[in-house]
Amino acid sequence: MVHNFNSGPSILPKVVYEQAAQAIADFNGTGLSILELGHRTSHFQAVMDEAVALVKELMQLDANKEVLFLHGGASTQFFQVPFNLLPQGKKAAYLDCGMWGTKAIKDAKLYGDVQVLGSSKDKNYTYIPNNYTVDADAVYCHITSNNTVEGTQQHEWPDTQVPLISDMSSDILSRQLDFNRFGLIYAGAQKNIGAAGVNLVVVDKNMLGHNDRSMPPMLDYRQHIANGSMLNTPPVFAVYVCMLTLRWLKEMGGIAAIEPINQAKADLLYQALDRLPVFTPTVAKEDRSLMNAVWIMEDATLEALFLEQCKKEGMIGIKGHRSVGGFRASMYNAMPLSSVQALVQLMEHFAHTHG
Amino acid sequence: MVHNFNSGPSILPKVVYEQAAQAIADFNGTGLSILELGHRTSHFQAVMDEAVALVKELMQLDANKEVLFLHGGASTQFFQVPFNLLPQGKKAAYLDCGMWGTKAIKDAKLYGDVQVLGSSKDKNYTYIPNNYTVDADAVYCHITSNNTVEGTQQHEWPDTQVPLISDMSSDILSRQLDFNRFGLIYAGAQKNIGAAGVNLVVVDKNMLGHNDRSMPPMLDYRQHIANGSMLNTPPVFAVYVCMLTLRWLKEMGGIAAIEPINQAKADLLYQALDRLPVFTPTVAKEDRSLMNAVWIMEDATLEALFLEQCKKEGMIGIKGHRSVGGFRASMYNAMPLSSVQALVQLMEHFAHTHG
Repeated sequence: MVHNFNSGPSILPKVVYEQAAQAIADFNGTGLSILELGHRTSHFQAVMDEAVALVKELMQLDANKEVLFLHGGASTQFFQVPFNLLPQGKKAAYLDCGMWGTKAIKDAKLYGDVQVLGSSKDKNYTYIPNNYTVDADAVYCHITSNNTVEGTQQHEWPDTQVPLISDMSSDILSRQLDFNRFGLIYAGAQKNIGAAGVNLVVVDKNMLGHNDRSMPPMLDYRQHIANGSMLNTPPVFAVYVCMLTLRWLKEMGGIAAIEPINQAKADLLYQALDRLPVFTPTVAKEDRSLMNAVWIMEDATLEALFLEQCKKEGMIGIKGHRSVGGFRASMYNAMPLSSVQALVQLMEHFAHTHG
Repeated sequence: MVHNFNSGPSILPKVVYEQAAQAIADFNGTGLSILELGHRTSHFQAVMDEAVALVKELMQLDANKEVLFLHGGASTQFFQVPFNLLPQGKKAAYLDCGMWGTKAIKDAKLYGDVQVLGSSKDKNYTYIPNNYTVDADAVYCHITSNNTVEGTQQHEWPDTQVPLISDMSSDILSRQLDFNRFGLIYAGAQKNIGAAGVNLVVVDKNMLGHNDRSMPPMLDYRQHIANGSMLNTPPVFAVYVCMLTLRWLKEMGGIAAIEPINQAKADLLYQALDRLPVFTPTVAKEDRSLMNAVWIMEDATLEALFLEQCKKEGMIGIKGHRSVGGFRASMYNAMPLSSVQALVQLMEHFAHTHG
């Protein structure tokens, strides 16, 4: 039995593996593998259409929102967002809450001015700053909704009239939000949407066309919209895996149904971390992520032993990011409660033996 | 029985489908699907290392060449190449032999000056111009080695000291070439390398660092080299499918073994096209592509009927590109000779009935 706590690429629903493997052998009775299926066929058009419709339905998007599946990961969006939306000489506001936000800021500075609203770098990104004012003339305000590496999550949103843009790579579709509040949302697929190799972008049409920078077509959101995410050959199989995962979520009951399960998993783990003194959660209580829990050991000499016991019990992906150290357990949508229960049981046993 | 003449995404070896489906169920006995496998694991590092080593071995690359697997398709390279290699105010030479080359030229003009060496647009791109001189001060000379849409192929290379850059998307690994002659080679994977969703770039280190344009890391080849194609989460599964396909080619005997098979398939089809007056190949004999054969019907009213008969015999992907019309049969590495034999048999039967 493997319990996959990987931070991404990460666990997907079992039914997705089964259906994806089947589509590689024979896609929908066509006699073709999905790997040899032309993207201009009605077969693949149906996959793309269903994936887009599922995103619109699950996120309850209004008519102004365009849904794109693009090549690359969120790191591609770090520059594609300001390249499209931040005209030369204009300003965008960014909140600096961790490794990914820092990279997004660095890319934005290539295209315009950046107001850094606040940074939690002073405390190793273990909290979310909340005492800031977004300049009214900022073109947009960028936040990372969940910091995969540091284990923090945005539970409140900036109080501003400026359009919000969020990197939601590691918590998209995990909790109910008014997604229509956002001017643009992007997310690498490999946590809650599907497998690595494709990027979801949800953009409000009103955000586009205010920039006269000359752009190669592949970087221009408008071109991708006009071509239904098929300006060039899309990552066919990756889009298919997204469609299967989105379909699974819908059949589960959508975000409203998965949210309390995610809450229950996180509660279980954080309660154990707070209860057992051998473990020390690193993040401020009010800013803890429901997706990625980060902790260290009170006695650092026990870390190797704990990791070894996790390994023996089939728990993988528990080691913290190299920039943070310690431990991290990622609990995305597809992670069953039983895996978190198994981890907590191991932690309790470890605490009693070594506490 | 399906005969897949798709132009891309296109047929891959059967063993690749089998192994890819197996890896989705359980990757190498890890108990994990490859879709949930972390890219920083030793398991995936081994996949990436083997894929890179296979490219180096199959293409017999010298030590100056770096092999990258990047997000996106060849269309991404249309701008990434000049963005990295063409400094503002400098000039690059481009040959215009079809739809893809035209797009590459358009993107290059965003970054510097372009010398268009020649164009076969006057004859609907049915031949390859060969009477041109590359300006000695051009930074590089860009050619499309094989024109997927129009069915032409570069059988000779520009006579120049300027570094050659080639889009080899649709004929890479299909014929023996001195790949070390090229400063940069790129290819979308979805024809001869693997499935859609990843891009192969082979770049000579000497080409890099001559440009002081400020670049986001995701567009900078040097950053991808420094990070072994894992600057961000790579398209894990797509790279795995490349590795499997490259491994198959090596086990076949490499390019030296596949080249005569590709020649035999093309000879068989072109001989039929030349022999049967009902069909009219569109491309100049000396410039015909071994990968994509394009033809029209002498009597256009028969086209729908021929297409219908192809469909009845399980032959898919035969319809020509919407910009060219008529028919196209793509015969990539993984296409068995028997499929071309079946097509030729059908053509002969059709010619006798309707000739």
